[in-house]
Amino acid sequence: MSNQFTVLRQQLQAAIDNKTKPPGSLGLLEGIALQAGMIQQSLHPQVLEPHIVVFAGDHGIASTGLVNPFPQEVTAQMVLNFLRGGAAINVFTRQHNIGLTVVDAGVNNDEWDASITLDHFIDAKIGRGTANYLETDAMTETATVAAIETGRSIVANLALQGCNTIGFGEMGIGNTSSAALIMSAITGIPVENCVGRGTGVNDAQLAIKTGTLQKVFQLHQLQQYSRQPVALLSKVGGYEIAMMTGAFLAAAEHHMIIVVDGFITTAALLLAQQLEPTVREFCLFAHTSNEQGHEAMLRYLDAKPLLHLGMRLGEGTGAALAIPLIRSAVAFLNEMASFDTAGVSNATESITSRPKA
Amino acid sequence: MSNQFTVLRQQLQAAIDNKTKPPGSLGLLEGIALQAGMIQQSLHPQVLEPHIVVFAGDHGIASTGLVNPFPQEVTAQMVLNFLRGGAAINVFTRQHNIGLTVVDAGVNNDEWDASITLDHFIDAKIGRGTANYLETDAMTETATVAAIETGRSIVANLALQGCNTIGFGEMGIGNTSSAALIMSAITGIPVENCVGRGTGVNDAQLAIKTGTLQKVFQLHQLQQYSRQPVALLSKVGGYEIAMMTGAFLAAAEHHMIIVVDGFITTAALLLAQQLEPTVREFCLFAHTSNEQGHEAMLRYLDAKPLLHLGMRLGEGTGAALAIPLIRSAVAFLNEMASFDTAGVSNATESITSRPKA
Repeated sequence: MSNQFTVLRQQLQAAIDNKTKPPGSLGLLEGIALQAGMIQQSLHPQVLEPHIVVFAGDHGIASTGLVNPFPQEVTAQMVLNFLRGGAAINVFTRQHNIGLTVVDAGVNNDEWDASITLDHFIDAKIGRGTANYLETDAMTETATVAAIETGRSIVANLALQGCNTIGFGEMGIGNTSSAALIMSAITGIPVENCVGRGTGVNDAQLAIKTGTLQKVFQLHQLQQYSRQPVALLSKVGGYEIAMMTGAFLAAAEHHMIIVVDGFITTAALLLAQQLEPTVREFCLFAHTSNEQGHEAMLRYLDAKPLLHLGMRLGEGTGAALAIPLIRSAVAFLNEMASFDTAGVSNATESITSRPKA
Repeated sequence: MSNQFTVLRQQLQAAIDNKTKPPGSLGLLEGIALQAGMIQQSLHPQVLEPHIVVFAGDHGIASTGLVNPFPQEVTAQMVLNFLRGGAAINVFTRQHNIGLTVVDAGVNNDEWDASITLDHFIDAKIGRGTANYLETDAMTETATVAAIETGRSIVANLALQGCNTIGFGEMGIGNTSSAALIMSAITGIPVENCVGRGTGVNDAQLAIKTGTLQKVFQLHQLQQYSRQPVALLSKVGGYEIAMMTGAFLAAAEHHMIIVVDGFITTAALLLAQQLEPTVREFCLFAHTSNEQGHEAMLRYLDAKPLLHLGMRLGEGTGAALAIPLIRSAVAFLNEMASFDTAGVSNATESITSRPKA
């Protein structure tokens, strides 16, 4: 089995090197092509029915006003915006012919307006937002496990429908705080280096956010849960983050190419990786978010992201913009001529050690 | 006029800021949307009939074997590869529905095989490669001016056909050497910091390449031509670089969005900018090439490129991969809902200076 993997890897590398271009000249795309081939166990990997799933959930902490400049209602308002097609993720998925599913993982609203087209909407609401982790655990362990399983089954369904490339996005006012706490607990990086400006807090607000989250870390003694992902999620996570954790697991189980988005999504990957270490092998990293902490998280994962656009929007927008580059990577592998067939001479050693002139 | 520009800029910025996202959260795409609007003098800029023009030419220096590991014949072989659809630029332009035109600016071959589909091929051969600048000027000034004018007319024709977004690529064994010499003469950066590995020379070969180009710089006293782009091109340029210089000028004249590719293309921009400084305003920078010198060139131009994929292939491949991001930028401006219309609450100051808990 291991030998078979080695052979495929060598065959893929030989195919990449024999394309009509100097070796290595397509940069990161060459590694992406190799990884896609290894994920699909094929010399001709393909991106089929790519899909973004956006998980939305509310956070009890948001009602305190201590961590977020936007009010909690924005989560539900933005879900409606997704369903009406007006958000950035709608624009980018339409542009690139990427499927989009929106999941209510735990939004704090009554019910969704039935008049809205809900073709790609899944109401999987587990609770009306999490509890405020300044006072108690964010979620029960039962709810946490239920959320993980829901995320898993949503992605398994997409796999059955022929999707082999997937990205996850999120919407949840306050969820950069959950992600920062999860990151700090798992990586051991101090909370203050994991906390960022989220949707855009100023310096004074950032100090309050940081102080609040340091207090939460102490209160729940989060360092104790560095290797207990379900407990950690239950203490300070969110419904959407738990669902993404399960979604990562299912995507790996189905050997999908996983396009990892930004700060919050990558925090869910940290959790999924603890539950199943091989998840990492299926992950391509879409972009470095402008949210402080994401770069450190990517370093921790030894990830080389495709894009560095200074984005920090969430919704899976980074993943949507990276999918065309992944398509380019598999396209050059499948479609470019090779030196043999194109009649193009390969490099010689024509630079001599004795200059003529 | 200036006031009208200021008003449009403010209107574009307001439109961008009122989209349903935290201000600035789409990173570089926001600046691209603004610039596209300013280029097209419109609140609703569009990417129409985007096109890549690849200019190919040979370099006399290549026959010495002092600067290039691939033999000179590869230029003509790769042009055939372009015409047969097997090169990376073919794959990426097909993927993104971008037009592709290949121009023989001065390839050193007899004639092109008439059996090949030449729909998008322009035979504008000015010479069979340049002369070896170790011995004499690369091109006459007459040929240089003719090449510039040819490049200009090719792009003017594309503008007439409705193309408003354009990128330039090149193919020419030995042309990183021309580009390095041009860069050094114009920017004042020493030759050794402008020379890179091109298609992939090793350390020993790089030392020979660098020594050769330092000698050429001295021989032609290139520092004297730092503000004489036509003379500089004639001394050490190439037919394809001269055509790209004219192409940049025409693209700016026609108010096109110009997507600047890698090292050699950017050297042509340095020349075009000296002939017409406003060219810069129409330029978006596709990527940072892995060719040493390109990053310094981009710093010199105060450019913030969209992609950092470690690519160094030429052919306009970086530009082709960046065009989808430019489409994304204008798409979010044109298609995203605004806070007003989507019923989404904007940021409040809900982070207080008096933490509750």
